[in-house]
Amino acid sequence: MTKKNFDIIIVGGGPAGIISGVTARKYYPDKSILLIKNVAQGVVPCGIPYMFSTLNKPEDNAMGDAPLQKNKIDFLVDEVVDLKKDEHKIETKLGNSFSYQKLVLANGSNPIIPPIKGLDKNGVYAIHKDMPYLKELKNKIGSAKNIVIIGGGFIGIEFADELSNINNLNVHLVEVLPRLLMNSFDPEFSKMVETKLEEKGVKLILGKKVVEIIGKEKVKKVNLDDNNNIKADLIILCIGAAPNIKLAEKAGLETIKSGICVDEYMRTSDKNIFAVGDCAGKKDFFTRKILPVMLASTATAEARVAGANLFQLKVVRENKGTIAIYSTYVDGLVLGSAGLSETAATNEGFEIVKGTAEVPSKHPTSLPNTEMIKVKLIFSKQSEVLMGGQISGGITAGEIINSIGLAIQQRVSLTELETLQMATHPHLTAPPTQYPLVLAAQNTLNR
Amino acid sequence: MTKKNFDIIIVGGGPAGIISGVTARKYYPDKSILLIKNVAQGVVPCGIPYMFSTLNKPEDNAMGDAPLQKNKIDFLVDEVVDLKKDEHKIETKLGNSFSYQKLVLANGSNPIIPPIKGLDKNGVYAIHKDMPYLKELKNKIGSAKNIVIIGGGFIGIEFADELSNINNLNVHLVEVLPRLLMNSFDPEFSKMVETKLEEKGVKLILGKKVVEIIGKEKVKKVNLDDNNNIKADLIILCIGAAPNIKLAEKAGLETIKSGICVDEYMRTSDKNIFAVGDCAGKKDFFTRKILPVMLASTATAEARVAGANLFQLKVVRENKGTIAIYSTYVDGLVLGSAGLSETAATNEGFEIVKGTAEVPSKHPTSLPNTEMIKVKLIFSKQSEVLMGGQISGGITAGEIINSIGLAIQQRVSLTELETLQMATHPHLTAPPTQYPLVLAAQNTLNR
Repeated sequence: MTKKNFDIIIVGGGPAGIISGVTARKYYPDKSILLIKNVAQGVVPCGIPYMFSTLNKPEDNAMGDAPLQKNKIDFLVDEVVDLKKDEHKIETKLGNSFSYQKLVLANGSNPIIPPIKGLDKNGVYAIHKDMPYLKELKNKIGSAKNIVIIGGGFIGIEFADELSNINNLNVHLVEVLPRLLMNSFDPEFSKMVETKLEEKGVKLILGKKVVEIIGKEKVKKVNLDDNNNIKADLIILCIGAAPNIKLAEKAGLETIKSGICVDEYMRTSDKNIFAVGDCAGKKDFFTRKILPVMLASTATAEARVAGANLFQLKVVRENKGTIAIYSTYVDGLVLGSAGLSETAATNEGFEIVKGTAEVPSKHPTSLPNTEMIKVKLIFSKQSEVLMGGQISGGITAGEIINSIGLAIQQRVSLTELETLQMATHPHLTAPPTQYPLVLAAQNTLNR
Repeated sequence: MTKKNFDIIIVGGGPAGIISGVTARKYYPDKSILLIKNVAQGVVPCGIPYMFSTLNKPEDNAMGDAPLQKNKIDFLVDEVVDLKKDEHKIETKLGNSFSYQKLVLANGSNPIIPPIKGLDKNGVYAIHKDMPYLKELKNKIGSAKNIVIIGGGFIGIEFADELSNINNLNVHLVEVLPRLLMNSFDPEFSKMVETKLEEKGVKLILGKKVVEIIGKEKVKKVNLDDNNNIKADLIILCIGAAPNIKLAEKAGLETIKSGICVDEYMRTSDKNIFAVGDCAGKKDFFTRKILPVMLASTATAEARVAGANLFQLKVVRENKGTIAIYSTYVDGLVLGSAGLSETAATNEGFEIVKGTAEVPSKHPTSLPNTEMIKVKLIFSKQSEVLMGGQISGGITAGEIINSIGLAIQQRVSLTELETLQMATHPHLTAPPTQYPLVLAAQNTLNR
């Protein structure tokens, strides 16, 4: 790369980095853009669990460079090691030096490595978004007999589901909390995933902590805090990730442990430097407290705000704060959550009312492949605005949770949901008499 | 029925009538409710097309009385023939007389019988929501060879799709407009349905009018306005329906041709009489002009407003006016439309901008059963509020159109959609970098 000065430089090649670039290209067609990524062969983050049996080959989950090429974004595989903000300059591991007018930090997060003794032994893997690393993991899984997954959040359960498809594999999942997906779902929904995984042969160990990894060079077993142990030749850490704030911190930008400090427009304490995605701090939609959410979808939403607003604040952000909005899939069971669960809302101190509905996915229910959809909505008791929703069902539940998410972001009231106009069709939805969001809202009436 | 005085009487046993009753029961637990329906064995309206090959037997599409029984709503099969509003009384065909405090007219619509010569011959059927009638139609289909469907709206195309599943049946569909679903979709979406039906062997005759039905007692063929004719032993009229306003008109309530006049709370010109569903007039969300939409989903939304507000205006209606919101399914192809199409908006005189996106239904696209989703959004150019959306795709498109519908009802802006936070998952949705609503909004930017 001979060019040394760019209008825009983006650090990071994940969804946050790519969408920052793509959006900047739309809003600022004449600016030069450079994206620097530290992994030559990236992967689609949410697709990682499916690289081990669902997809034919790991390469099917590669993160391609097509959006960069299509949008005339220069890119480089290298690592930014120094940021001199007063000089508008960055320096890289390979000795490159570039200057920018606007810089976007999208350098993501790193897997959390918990303080468990023996984690340095062979056979312990974390979730790195790096193709060669994950291919190595896939090879190891191929020859493993006993796998222990540590962590019962989204990645943990999706790994457990995926690995349970492989014959003759003994899969344990250990979660320190008393139930799976506890941070996003109420108990009745956690139970559904637990049942599903157990039916698939996954052994769940809930409310227990791994205290030590036993083995010589190679992992042999894991010890739990109840003095039991589990045989293991492979351990997968699915504990979550910590934001990568080192570069920003060193450069003197304001940071806290949970991320680089940003304003509503994703600007850091230096107005020429933006931060988006996992490395950027997030504030909760309802409380403005720190919200530890790391999702590609959240990252892309932030990247669109940053990309549009790099040189001028063009896009006024009207949905302030971040909502947690998730969907997951376990062997045909779809779960979604948006905003606050009943547990979370209550813990936070909100006075709430809730409504639930259980309805068929098609109508009449005699249509083939009709499944049940269960939805639970949480409203502020006094203000009657929607604060959260959870759903279980078939494939369509993945989009219904997005209607719920939109309704939360629009601060839709109970009355508005109750009188919502929606499209229904025998093959596609619940009947018009029982549309799940409307019915759950109506069922909140005994408030 | 010995009881002669009811707090609430509902005329009509379709979705509008049932949901009026169910909602009234929730809001007014102590009131007595009577529902009078003129069909002993009703059917789920939107399920009608699927009674002919998809469902095992027509009875699988029966409209049950369970919601009435569960909600302690008395009901009676009879026909209300007279309404004396000043006396708060109704009289029925079987000589019953009842008095009410509040009356809900939910007596629906009747199929439009066009002025075509020869329609009185044997072998001509319309869509009546009546089980014995539809069972007779099913029998006739069983022995038919050449069926002509007149009308290329939703019911017409769904009938064509369904009948094309039956072996050795020759199905023609005649539509006077130049394309299918013209009132709800732009040409590029109409084309998809046309192609799909043609692939299934349905012969489409577009832009032509049936002028006469030929035959002695029984239908033999239909003559078209281009002097061609089509062999036919069975004709199905799918032309639409006209509101049943006779009773209201005779009683001296204000009506226009397109329905009984109602206010925002579904009250007629007599404040103790409400009208909901097909028989009630509707006003367009954007223009307040008359909107000829007859949908079970619209009917239930109105019924919820009426049911809650019978004795006191409890639920303040915040989404004023009616949006057209539809979904349909043709052999795996799902189409949805909400609000105004580009054609409709332009004809109405709105200055608009549009954005489209074509994205995969899963990610990475190497996942099995990945389909393409196409979405088109219409915004006011100046105000930048969402005015309409159309979608094609697989099964999940039926819920994405409901997100679009919610966004229209909330008058969501282009910017809000562009920065929407949504849940994405490999098995369930497009990738976070290409979520269809966000991408279509962003693609509107070259405005």
